[in-house]
Formats: sequence, C-alpha cells, structure tokens
Amino acid sequence: MESLLDMIEHPQQLKKFSLAQLEKLAGEIRGLLVHTVAKTGGHLAPNLGIVELTIALHRVFDSPHDKFVWDVGHQAYVHKILTGRRKCFDTLRQQGGISGFPKILESEHDCFGTGHSSTSISAALGLALARDLSKKKHHVIAIIGDGSLTGGQAYEALNHAGDLGTNFIVVLNDNEMSIDKNVGAMSDYLSKMRTAPTYNRVKHDIEFLIRRIPAIGDSMAKTVERVKDSLRYLLVPGMLFEELGFTYIGPIDGHNIDLISDVLEKAKNMNGPVLIHNLTRKGKGYHPAECQADKFHGVGPFCIDSGEVIKNGNKPTYTHIFGNTLISLARENPDIIAITAAMPEGTGLKKFSTLFPDRFFDVGIAEPHAVTVAAGLAASGKKPVVAFYSTFGQRAYDQILHDVCLQNLPVIFALDRAGIVGEDGPTHHGVFDFSYLRHIPNLIFMAPKDENELQHMLYTATIAQAPVAIRYPRGSGSGVPLDECLTEIPIGTAEILSSGKDIMFLAVGAMVEQCQEARLRLAAIGIQAGVVNARFIKPLDEKTIRELVREVGILVTVEDNVVAGGFGSAVLEYINAQQFNWVKVLRLGLPDQFIEHGTRMDLLKQNGLTGEEISKQVMAFMKQYGVR
Amino acid sequence: MESLLDMIEHPQQLKKFSLAQLEKLAGEIRGLLVHTVAKTGGHLAPNLGIVELTIALHRVFDSPHDKFVWDVGHQAYVHKILTGRRKCFDTLRQQGGISGFPKILESEHDCFGTGHSSTSISAALGLALARDLSKKKHHVIAIIGDGSLTGGQAYEALNHAGDLGTNFIVVLNDNEMSIDKNVGAMSDYLSKMRTAPTYNRVKHDIEFLIRRIPAIGDSMAKTVERVKDSLRYLLVPGMLFEELGFTYIGPIDGHNIDLISDVLEKAKNMNGPVLIHNLTRKGKGYHPAECQADKFHGVGPFCIDSGEVIKNGNKPTYTHIFGNTLISLARENPDIIAITAAMPEGTGLKKFSTLFPDRFFDVGIAEPHAVTVAAGLAASGKKPVVAFYSTFGQRAYDQILHDVCLQNLPVIFALDRAGIVGEDGPTHHGVFDFSYLRHIPNLIFMAPKDENELQHMLYTATIAQAPVAIRYPRGSGSGVPLDECLTEIPIGTAEILSSGKDIMFLAVGAMVEQCQEARLRLAAIGIQAGVVNARFIKPLDEKTIRELVREVGILVTVEDNVVAGGFGSAVLEYINAQQFNWVKVLRLGLPDQFIEHGTRMDLLKQNGLTGEEISKQVMAFMKQYGVR
Repeated sequence: MESLLDMIEHPQQLKKFSLAQLEKLAGEIRGLLVHTVAKTGGHLAPNLGIVELTIALHRVFDSPHDKFVWDVGHQAYVHKILTGRRKCFDTLRQQGGISGFPKILESEHDCFGTGHSSTSISAALGLALARDLSKKKHHVIAIIGDGSLTGGQAYEALNHAGDLGTNFIVVLNDNEMSIDKNVGAMSDYLSKMRTAPTYNRVKHDIEFLIRRIPAIGDSMAKTVERVKDSLRYLLVPGMLFEELGFTYIGPIDGHNIDLISDVLEKAKNMNGPVLIHNLTRKGKGYHPAECQADKFHGVGPFCIDSGEVIKNGNKPTYTHIFGNTLISLARENPDIIAITAAMPEGTGLKKFSTLFPDRFFDVGIAEPHAVTVAAGLAASGKKPVVAFYSTFGQRAYDQILHDVCLQNLPVIFALDRAGIVGEDGPTHHGVFDFSYLRHIPNLIFMAPKDENELQHMLYTATIAQAPVAIRYPRGSGSGVPLDECLTEIPIGTAEILSSGKDIMFLAVGAMVEQCQEARLRLAAIGIQAGVVNARFIKPLDEKTIRELVREVGILVTVEDNVVAGGFGSAVLEYINAQQFNWVKVLRLGLPDQFIEHGTRMDLLKQNGLTGEEISKQVMAFMKQYGVR
Repeated sequence: MESLLDMIEHPQQLKKFSLAQLEKLAGEIRGLLVHTVAKTGGHLAPNLGIVELTIALHRVFDSPHDKFVWDVGHQAYVHKILTGRRKCFDTLRQQGGISGFPKILESEHDCFGTGHSSTSISAALGLALARDLSKKKHHVIAIIGDGSLTGGQAYEALNHAGDLGTNFIVVLNDNEMSIDKNVGAMSDYLSKMRTAPTYNRVKHDIEFLIRRIPAIGDSMAKTVERVKDSLRYLLVPGMLFEELGFTYIGPIDGHNIDLISDVLEKAKNMNGPVLIHNLTRKGKGYHPAECQADKFHGVGPFCIDSGEVIKNGNKPTYTHIFGNTLISLARENPDIIAITAAMPEGTGLKKFSTLFPDRFFDVGIAEPHAVTVAAGLAASGKKPVVAFYSTFGQRAYDQILHDVCLQNLPVIFALDRAGIVGEDGPTHHGVFDFSYLRHIPNLIFMAPKDENELQHMLYTATIAQAPVAIRYPRGSGSGVPLDECLTEIPIGTAEILSSGKDIMFLAVGAMVEQCQEARLRLAAIGIQAGVVNARFIKPLDEKTIRELVREVGILVTVEDNVVAGGFGSAVLEYINAQQFNWVKVLRLGLPDQFIEHGTRMDLLKQNGLTGEEISKQVMAFMKQYGVR
C-alpha cells in the first residue's frame, strides 16, 4: 500500500487529502513515532496523543504563514514529521540530528523554541501583538497541555491576553495528565468539564426552560435577567476561561479530525482570544503507552512488542538513590517533607509519596510556588526537600534567593539532571546552577562524586540549619557500594583522594571520576597529578586550597557547568583574595555558549570534560607555561 | 484626649476595646502613619487603606499564635504599630531601625518575611500544612492585594491550596489598584464583583424564582437540576475562586471594622480554604493620598499640608532619562515596544504609555510573562524593551535565559534600581544582577557611568541584534549635560577616563563616580591612579584589560554588586585565562551577605564603596603587598 506520509514534503499537501486519507495518515504517523522513538528514545506518549490535532492544525492553517507555538515542545514530533523533517526524523535527539523540541534555527515552521513549561501563551501573545502592530493577518495558535496550565506563567498570560482581547487561539490539549498524574484545583475543574453534556444538547433544554419561566413584575426583573445570564454557565462549561476574557469552545473529541477541523475553522473567524478544549488520550494507538503513559512520557529505547525499556546495565541512578535515601531519612525524622513540581517519577519521589502520603506534595508545574511553600514549612520547623531538575530550578531563582536564603530557612534543594543531560539538549542541560546559586548568601551548595556520597550529603543537609542545595547528574552512578550508615560531612570540607607533586585537580561532582581517569593518563607519561573531590561549591574548603597552593604549582578546576561564574571562578576569587599569586590555575568547564543535544559522553568529550580530554588540556597547559 | 494607641503594647489589648474605641484607634493610626511617613518616606497609601482590616485581624485572631503573612509586605505598617513596634515606628526604614517590610528577626509577630509580590498564599499554605502535620490548631491568614493576584505564583498557590482543601484564610484586599492602575482580566473580573448585589438580597429573589419554575417531566429533570445548580453562580460572585476550591465570601466593606470582624469570625470556623474579598480605598483618610494613590504608594518625605513631595535637588533621575530617551528612540523606530510589569511610573514609562498606547504593555505583576511576551515580539522582528527593577528581574531569570538568550532574540532589559537601593532594604537591593546574568550566553550587559551614557547605551541596545541588559541605579544621576545626538557605543569597549602609573580602577556604572573621587584622594598622597569606565560587564573589553596589565601592576575592580560571580570575577576569569600572573587584582564590591536597609550613601560607605573608602582600601592593599 502506498505511504501517504512519503507524499508529504510540505503541510500544504495535507489539504488535498480526504478524511479517510487523513485517518490513514494518522496511523502511518503513529507507526513512525513508535518505530523511531523505540530506537532513539524520546517523548512518545504525548506525541501519540496529539496526532489528530496536529493533522487538523495543518489542514486548517497555513504554516509557516500561520504560527504554532508548542508548549514545552515535546509533543511537536508530529508537527516536525509534517513539516519537511520526516526524512531526518530518525536522527531525532542525536548529535547533529533534529532536536526533540521546536527550534527556530531548525525550520521555518518552528516559529518559537520551547522546552520549559507554560511559556506558549505568553510567546503566542507576543507573536499576535507583533502581527497586529505590523498590520498582518496570519493566525497564531498556542498548543498547551493541561499540565502546563498549572504553571503560573500560563495564568499570567491568560490574564493579560483576555484583557487585551487580542485575536489568537489557545488549544488546551487535555489528556488528563502531564507527566505524572496531574494535580491542582484546575485539574479537577477540567475533569468536571469533561463530563459535562455537549453544547447542543444543553442548549436545546435550556431554551425550553427559559420559555417556561413565568412573567414577573418589575422588582424582580433584574434578578430574572441575572438568572438568564447565569444560564450562560450551563452553555459554557469553560466559565473560568470566559471570566478571564477568552471564548471557550469545548470540550471536543481530540481524536476526531473532522470535528477538530470544524472547531478550528470556527475559531479562526472569531474575534478576540479563543480557547479550544481538546480531549485526547496520551499514548493513543500504542497499547503499552496507553496503559503506562507516565513511563512512555519520556522514554529511552524500548522493545516495540513488549514495551520493555532496554536497560543499560544495572547500576542504580542518582535519582533512585536520592529517593531511597530520603525514605530512610524520613523514617527517622518526621519533619522531613518532600515536594515536587509535577515530577514524582522523574525526581525519584514516587515511592516516598506512597509511603508518606501526608508528607509529600506535588504542586503541579509550579517551581516558584514549590519553593515558597517549602519556605513556609521550614519557617514552621519542618525540613522540606524540594526536588526538581537543575534546569527547572532556574524558574525559582528569585524564590530561592528571596523567600528561602534571605530568611536563612533550612530548605533542601535536590537538583537532579545537573550538568550535561544529553539528548534533551540546550533547554534541559543543568549547566548554570553553580553560577546562578553560588552567589546567593547563606546557601550551602554541594555536589557528590558518586551515588554513595549523595546519601551522606542528603543526610548532612537534613542536619544543617541553613538552606542547602545538592546537585547531581542524570543517569547511573558509578555503581560503588552504598554505605549502610550515613555520616555527616563537615560543611565546607573537600576530600583529598590522592596527592600529586605536579598538579592537583579540584573536581566537582561527576567530574571527579573523569579526573581520576585523567590522573592515570598523566601518570603514564610521568606527570604526578592528585585529585581533590571538592564536595562543596559553597562554602569553599579554603583551608584545603590554602594547603594545596603551598605544595603544588598548578591547580586544575573541573566542572560540568559554564566556567563563567562557576566553581573555578569561586576558586579564583579565593586565590585572588588571598593573593596566592604564584599558583597557576587552569579552569576546565563549559564554554560561554549553549550546548546542543547529543549523548552525554559525546558532549562531555566535545567540551573537553572526559578523562582523556582533561589530560590533554593539562598537558597543553603545562607545555604552554613551560612547567614541563 | 487620651491616646488609645499609647495603651497598646500587645495586640491582645485590642480585644477589650469597644467598637467606638477601635474606630478612634483607626484615626490615631492614620495620624501616626501620615506623620511618620512624611518624615521617613515609605509606603503610605497601602497602609492607610488597610487600617480597619488590620485592626479587625488583630481583634479576631491571636498573633503571634495565629500567623499573618502580608503579601509584598509594604502594607504591614499598621500591623507593626499594633504589635509592639509603635515606639520605634519613627525609625521606619532607617539604618538600625525597623524595616519597611515584615521580617522574622524583627518580631515574633512577623512569621514570614516578604518584599516581592505574590508569595503570601504559597507561604501561608506552607505554614498551614506544617501546622496540620504537627497537629496544632492555630489559624493562618494571607493578606494579598488585588495587584499581587496578577502574579502567576498566586494562582499556582490557589490551585494547589484549593486542591488540598487545607484550612486557611486568604484576605483579598481589593483596592482596585496595585501600584499603578491594575491590569488584566482578573482585575475586570473583580470589578464586576464589586458591583454585584449583596448576598442576602439576591438569595431572597432567587428562592422566590426557584419556587416559580414549573414541574417538569423526567427527561428535563437533569437540566433543571443544573439550572438550580447554576443559581449558585448568582449567590456566589466569586465563582472563579470557588472553582479553584476556595469558599468565597464577599465583597465586603473593608472599612467597616465590625463587618470585617464578623466575616473573619465566620471564616475562622469554616473548613477548607476561604477567600474573603475585602474592598478598601487606598490612601483612605489622607486627602492627597486618596486623590493620588499611585504617587503615595511609595513616597519620599512630603509636606503633610500640601502633599507635596520634598525634592532633593533638580538632577534628573536615571528613570526619567530612560523614559525620555525611549520616547525619542520610539519616534524614530516604530518597532520599539515598551513592557512593564505593573510599574509604568516606577520605571519611567508613564509618558511613553500616553504617547504610544499601542506600543506599550503593562502585563501586571508578571515578570516571567513580560519577558516571554517580549521574546515573542522579538521573534517577529519587534524591538521590545522590558523595564523592571533589578531585584524583580530575578523573577524572570529562567525566561531571560531560556526564552530570550537561548534563542538570541534582541530583547532589551532595562534594569532600574540596580545596586544598593537604600531604605527598601535586602528584599529590594539590586545587587545580584551581574552574577545572575553575566553567565548567560549571548547576552550583552552594560552599565552607564552617568545618565548621559544611559542614553547612548539605550540607543546602542536598540541597534544590537542580540539580547541586551542595561542596569542603572536608583535616584538621580550626576546632573551631567545630556548629548542631543545619540551615538552607538561599540559593543564590548570600555572607556579610559584617566591613566595612572600605579593603579588602574576598572569601575562599573555608579562606581565610576566614586572611583573618580578615590583617584583624587590617592593623587593627594602621591599615588597615581587611573579610572576606566568598564561600560560592559559582558562582553568584557579584553583588549583594554590586556593593555592595562602591560602598563600597570595593580587593577582594582569596583562594583555595587556581590563580588561572588560579579564583574570583578569576570575580570579575574579573563586574566586567569590569559595567565597574566604578574598583575595584582583587588576586587571591591559587596560581601557574601544580605545588605540591610539604610540610606544608599550610608550603605555604600559601610560596604567600602564610597570614594573615601575605596581609596583607603587601595592604600591598605598597596601597603599589604609591599607595592608602597
């Protein structure tokens, strides 16, 4: 049978297809999605759920003339397939290949890049305002999931857009969950709407009823008018959105291409902002993903038949160790509370949430609120642990500074996916946290060299009477044995792993392992390098640095963070403050640019942060400055 | 006549007062507020509006057993007066005196510190959750203005709290404006409620009406039930809050102590979260503040009789120059668009908004949305200028990084009130921006030495095809002449103001003037110091630094930012990268701690950043290292 997908080079070609053909096309796209993501890994379930909506969008609108903004963007695979990127779709998330998120530089059909949640309505409003100012006529459409609607920025944008009355369309893709089960009152509200009778049926009944309301004297007239007005609430289940100034249409069956197309056509011709409530099923069409939408939200390579994820070795992940350690600590310490921003699975808190349901809070995709609610808990003597990805912690920078650190409240921040994350690319690398956190007064900031040390650091954090951040990388640890007994690490102390006559590495977190390798390589050519596991980005272990600079002429700082303002910069600041002018410092880390996607190891290598590359740079440095 | 205020040492004493006495007390408090703020400056209008509410809160609840969280906190003066700080109220906002915001360390009655907007519901929820976990019984009350409700974090907190069903009270203090005229659909929604008929009146009418609805067959029964249900919308004007899981009470007259007390008593005994909609008038009781509530929101010392603000000289403020320059530029360049987050007056954009109403957007207290909407505009070829205070820019760190800089979009950030702001204290000092922005790739970051240079920098920013931030201090410039013709400053070039044989100052922004003074002081004792106006924090003028280190042995960097990760750190990084090991660098700036409130000059002096203090530190440095 002829492949329809092969015929599409440009979304305009969709417009000639019959409904039957479009439905066949949907099936082909699902096949391509499953087969590709089974190999590359990626966001499967969200894309399976949005196939019909994406087809309908391209059927009704004219991309790139009309502009789509995909919230978070992990559901834009279908859009990519339909806009000229089908042939390179097998390069998805691979170095040099197409990104897992929309990206302006990748295609004219990607008018705005996304990656973090709840930005699409703001961006789409900006595009629509620019259009109006330039007296252009195209359409702007934001596509946002119900999960992203828990982020405050989405509300800020609805509030502003509803007030302005700008023409644009928000498609609320409601799949009853974000990554994990969705939370919040808004989620309950949407559920209620899902079960509301359809528009036409209710309208008919209401009209009949209005006719039966008897005539009433003047004094009651106003109230009767208000009653009639209130019937609007029956006709319009999306009252909340209507109150914010949007015209609400829905809920509609988001897997019915014809219905969606009709509604989009209608919305196209409306004045002011319109919100379409589109109901879809995450993972639709691939049984394992329908059953376990959370597992298949973002997934590694898997076996198509069984839906089993292909495992890479048996070493536990940092995430897993974090979750387990927190459970042990919480058993002993009833004040420990865990908070996640819609990521119980991703941050390793799922099991905690089952064991301590009263001490676990999933606040939705709402990092600012997560941090301030933790500050409130800490101000009352609790020991809250806020777990999010390093990159998402960026969204709560001010709350960390203003609500937690300014008040010196003992909130613990567990920053998962720190450093290079790999395939998710520039929107998700956690390579700024040393720089965005270390200048905040009162904060203690640690990074473990391995998963065993993560345990001890977490324990140490629960004892500290101050705000503490711990950052650790994505994926598996080194598989080291795990101590059964947790011990406190004295605040601000590094660990000397080996001594060296020629140079000393001051390495942080995952870079310790790379420096150990570099040490061996250097030893092989007669250079004696020692390795210090810095452990603390803040406070620095000044005593150890002071001792090192007396013994060795070269310090090499190594971090998987941008060098600007990072750990090496902290070391420089100390050395400068002490005027240890005789010591040479080589700072290795990430350059002043955004890092593209690729495997974690490839990107580390490319940026000079593997053992081999580190040793080469050290040799070059020593040669350049005539030390050897 | 006896002063009631003099009798109150503890809020418990209020409980014995009669209503008449409480009303008299309200008058006395207003008198104290006006007389004190006329001398100290501060937030007058919000406090005048909230006198009755604060009295009622302390009448009904038992502070500090019960906990109040004041959103933003600038309206907590009355609370301070009633909780043992009346005698030191004249030290308000003065060094060593009481803070203009609630502060845990200041009083047991301040259970949570605030300063930035929209955090109170999150914090109060945290306090309430901690209470429940500890099986305590006290009440928690957040007091939030309608302006703060435009911040997304407030919605994140409502969404979470409504879902949890936690017992606590949110008092929405609705004075129909935040600092400037309030914006957004939520604001319209609140207006609608203000004019809704009162609860009891409507209830009576509705019951009558329900009785008149005729009996109807089975097929219609469900719809009739829905109609009756929908009558709830009439009874409950705060439907939107009800949908989010709150019990809504209101709107009520927020200047009627007895009524507020009744409603608070009722709310005290309700289950689940309650929102009380309290209508007040900003500035109430002091005529000039009632008429010009925006002017008297935050105000300097003023004449009580006339309401005229006492001016300090005639030099224009940076804010004023920014606003005027942007107008000139906007006349020439139709792509320029101005965006503020609820601060058209504070950021100097008021006049712009009148002249270019279509190109001006006030998005509410919603910095994240402000930045992403600007990114959308820039992606469409516009030249948006987002103006906010440096400290509030912290709230949009992720949007600046992820939505603007990652996509290299030419958005301009005008960071007003950078450096030490003075009396507003630690929640408002803009002393982190060098550190939180300079590590972001693609960003160009400038600081002008005076208000004339600000003009040229703003012009330069509008030409640059990249994201640009410009930061400048609070208050007046140096009164230098303003060039009529604006010229482009080549990106990444410093300006050598004077040369020096012994040392060179590398000064940023407002510190240039201080270094000029230090230079004179040093010259007087025979030390030849030169001054470089760095102009760019990023990219650094590496060429100039390279030349300087060849000519002079000591560089002194001076910045009104924390030294950790700041400008001096950038200079160190460059010198380290080039291994200019012979040069000595002294970095002057703010220490790794939060700076308290006081006058700007006192705080600069205390932190070693006046000309005199800078020269002393240089001398000590030279002596210590044997340079002299």
